[in-house]
Amino acid sequence: MANLPDHTDTIIAPATPPGTSALAVIRLSGDRAISLVSDFFSHDLTRTPSHRARLGILKDGERIIDEVVITVFRKPKSYTREDLVEISCHGSPVVVREIVNLFIRHGARMARPGEFTRRAFLNGRIDLAQAEAVADVIHAETEMARQAAINQMRSGYPAELARLREQLIEFASLVELELDFGEEDVEFAKRDELKKLVEQIIPFINMLASTFAAGNVIKNGVPTVIAGKPNAGKSTLLNALLNEDRAIVSDIPGTTRDTIEDEITLGGLLFRFIDTAGLRPTTDAIEAQGVERTRQYMKRASLILYLIDLTQATPPEVHEQEQELKALNIPYILVGNKTDKLRPDELEKWKGFPMVFISASQKTNLDELKNRILEHFQIPEVRSGDVIVTNARHYQSLLETRAALQRVLNGLAKNISGDLLAQDIRQALHHLGEITGTITTEHLLDSIFSRFCIGK
Amino acid sequence: MANLPDHTDTIIAPATPPGTSALAVIRLSGDRAISLVSDFFSHDLTRTPSHRARLGILKDGERIIDEVVITVFRKPKSYTREDLVEISCHGSPVVVREIVNLFIRHGARMARPGEFTRRAFLNGRIDLAQAEAVADVIHAETEMARQAAINQMRSGYPAELARLREQLIEFASLVELELDFGEEDVEFAKRDELKKLVEQIIPFINMLASTFAAGNVIKNGVPTVIAGKPNAGKSTLLNALLNEDRAIVSDIPGTTRDTIEDEITLGGLLFRFIDTAGLRPTTDAIEAQGVERTRQYMKRASLILYLIDLTQATPPEVHEQEQELKALNIPYILVGNKTDKLRPDELEKWKGFPMVFISASQKTNLDELKNRILEHFQIPEVRSGDVIVTNARHYQSLLETRAALQRVLNGLAKNISGDLLAQDIRQALHHLGEITGTITTEHLLDSIFSRFCIGK
Repeated sequence: MANLPDHTDTIIAPATPPGTSALAVIRLSGDRAISLVSDFFSHDLTRTPSHRARLGILKDGERIIDEVVITVFRKPKSYTREDLVEISCHGSPVVVREIVNLFIRHGARMARPGEFTRRAFLNGRIDLAQAEAVADVIHAETEMARQAAINQMRSGYPAELARLREQLIEFASLVELELDFGEEDVEFAKRDELKKLVEQIIPFINMLASTFAAGNVIKNGVPTVIAGKPNAGKSTLLNALLNEDRAIVSDIPGTTRDTIEDEITLGGLLFRFIDTAGLRPTTDAIEAQGVERTRQYMKRASLILYLIDLTQATPPEVHEQEQELKALNIPYILVGNKTDKLRPDELEKWKGFPMVFISASQKTNLDELKNRILEHFQIPEVRSGDVIVTNARHYQSLLETRAALQRVLNGLAKNISGDLLAQDIRQALHHLGEITGTITTEHLLDSIFSRFCIGK
Repeated sequence: MANLPDHTDTIIAPATPPGTSALAVIRLSGDRAISLVSDFFSHDLTRTPSHRARLGILKDGERIIDEVVITVFRKPKSYTREDLVEISCHGSPVVVREIVNLFIRHGARMARPGEFTRRAFLNGRIDLAQAEAVADVIHAETEMARQAAINQMRSGYPAELARLREQLIEFASLVELELDFGEEDVEFAKRDELKKLVEQIIPFINMLASTFAAGNVIKNGVPTVIAGKPNAGKSTLLNALLNEDRAIVSDIPGTTRDTIEDEITLGGLLFRFIDTAGLRPTTDAIEAQGVERTRQYMKRASLILYLIDLTQATPPEVHEQEQELKALNIPYILVGNKTDKLRPDELEKWKGFPMVFISASQKTNLDELKNRILEHFQIPEVRSGDVIVTNARHYQSLLETRAALQRVLNGLAKNISGDLLAQDIRQALHHLGEITGTITTEHLLDSIFSRFCIGK
């Protein structure tokens, strides 16, 4: 392991969200965690066995702070592989602050975001990919994202990559050994075996990389633009979809996510809707700016729903819009709205148009629209154990590993010199190591763990 | 106990606030809690001893929901005195929802607010006053309010009242026994002993009731009005006080309370400031409405800070304002603001005015203002063990008990008939019983426990 634990002091942090609730949990980890808490607890924790919960009083001198349940986890059988104490107190911000302050006054240090998990990584309990998965589980916004994150947390693919990397290291060493012999024509590293190994790693990386498109959609959702002229019914459609989504989410107090106005779950995927104006060319300068902004939004979208007010639009107009949409080269769906306002003979003229006909206000035909939306994202259901790369950092490293390995293969074919070969192998090793955390820098770790909640 | 446990089904609820965090805790309580969770856990919990934490996988069939730590508390050694399970999972709303849904699908019921604590009360683990104190600890907004609530949670005064009540019950029974003998002139209840007992209870109730004025201020804070003409500097003063308050609150992530713009802690007490206009009589109808509203606010305040712009006001004007304030019969402090804008000779003319001179913008002399504010609320520091009645319901019951006992004493002095005496004693018993929860109604319990968080 490249990084040894750089901190052995005892850290503390609330592990549950701020707010009033039944319980709050505060965690301490480090050599002094158990004895420190024991000093202020009504029972002697220094003799309490691991994984044991004790009810008692937390006291600062004569001052009672709270009745708490304290659970002791002894190293190495803890989340951090250090001595770890969990204090379950009343869910009051005042109580939490008193307890955290008490232990900070007596030598604990406020943990940085992700520092508990960082210690779990530095102490070898989990690899870096698993550590990242912990944050993904916490931030999962859909059931499918949660499942993908849990799979990554328990997945063997980083371990398998680490195993293949070990084999590659041997070849790298042998090739470099050859270099030490300078001008002599020795060949310790058997080129055909190296070729065989690389040809074994590349398909595995291809398989992993191929899952990222789905993985990215599962984890980050689908940026979707709802476009159309003013009064085409964009907000009505958004609300209609949103209400159905909210109705599906079971209404368990304390579990409903803070609803972001424009996030909707369809078929287990998160769609982030952006509501914009139409694309119609204009001579008005300010309006032109708006249209340009719309175009920029659309270019970043994975899907465009283009809403047409059937009571106002004409077929030639819609043809024109469609040409503009096609030019953007992004999947789109034409949606004809306000069918409830049309007489049958008026509807007739739209027949044959490649359009989903709905009434957003009457919630008519929304299911067909949803199906059409989902057709664009053929995401298989995520089952336990499925390997899906959802992490953009991993995906990047996989691509860079593959490129380096491809150079190794090309080099072998051209029988290039050992030093060039060694260089390509080293690069592959580096990028593979980035995934599992064998190769890390403080900078990388900081950027990964700063995504975490405090207390994790 | 008047009420037997009315629910024996297994309840579930998240015990920590919604939001993403390191951990979330979900609780189940009831006969099936342990076996139900065990059915979906990687370890057999039915044989796990009480107070033991186990790391494992929560699975719905083949689908992994999360890696969790589960702690089992076996009856009667649990919060509810029932079998109780705490599931500590990743702090993701999606994970929490999945877990709660899983167990609801398999027979658990969503707990109502306070239902865990209600069961603790119904099962005799705590009395009603202690149950109410649990909610007070959770909702405490200042350190002093927390300490007062903890004291109540651990206080013996309801138990002492219950003991005195038992003695009173004996007399009540004896007096009522006399009534059964109708016309015969028997006297089972010794009147002098009854008198002695009542004379012993009344001072104890007086002592408790006398703590309520302070207790109410500690628990609920002090409604304070900042009044004064437009541009007198009311917002500036509020912000100056608020900033100092915020600077004092140590900045521990996850513990800072959601700041309500107008709540300030001074000397450990919470002041709720209401910012209003001045009181000056006006002929303008709309302005008159505003002045009337101000007057209403002021009448509900415990303290009025009346801010005067010293660069604009004249001494006769201030005299007039002061007369109006005096008429309200509420403590007030005249505050002369903008001293930084006055020349020494201008300040001279205000000499001798009963006024605190400050500059809100320069934060000059704010400490003197704070001291003057606190002079109005001589709250002793709350130490562990101090008995302070903070609960308005208890205070009301104490007053009604005292009134009934006073009637008993008067009756004894006038040698009234046994049936009238028995009636007064019964009333005293009733009100005493309301405090400890010996006398309860579903309605009372509902109103008490609906104040609780879900999961407590």
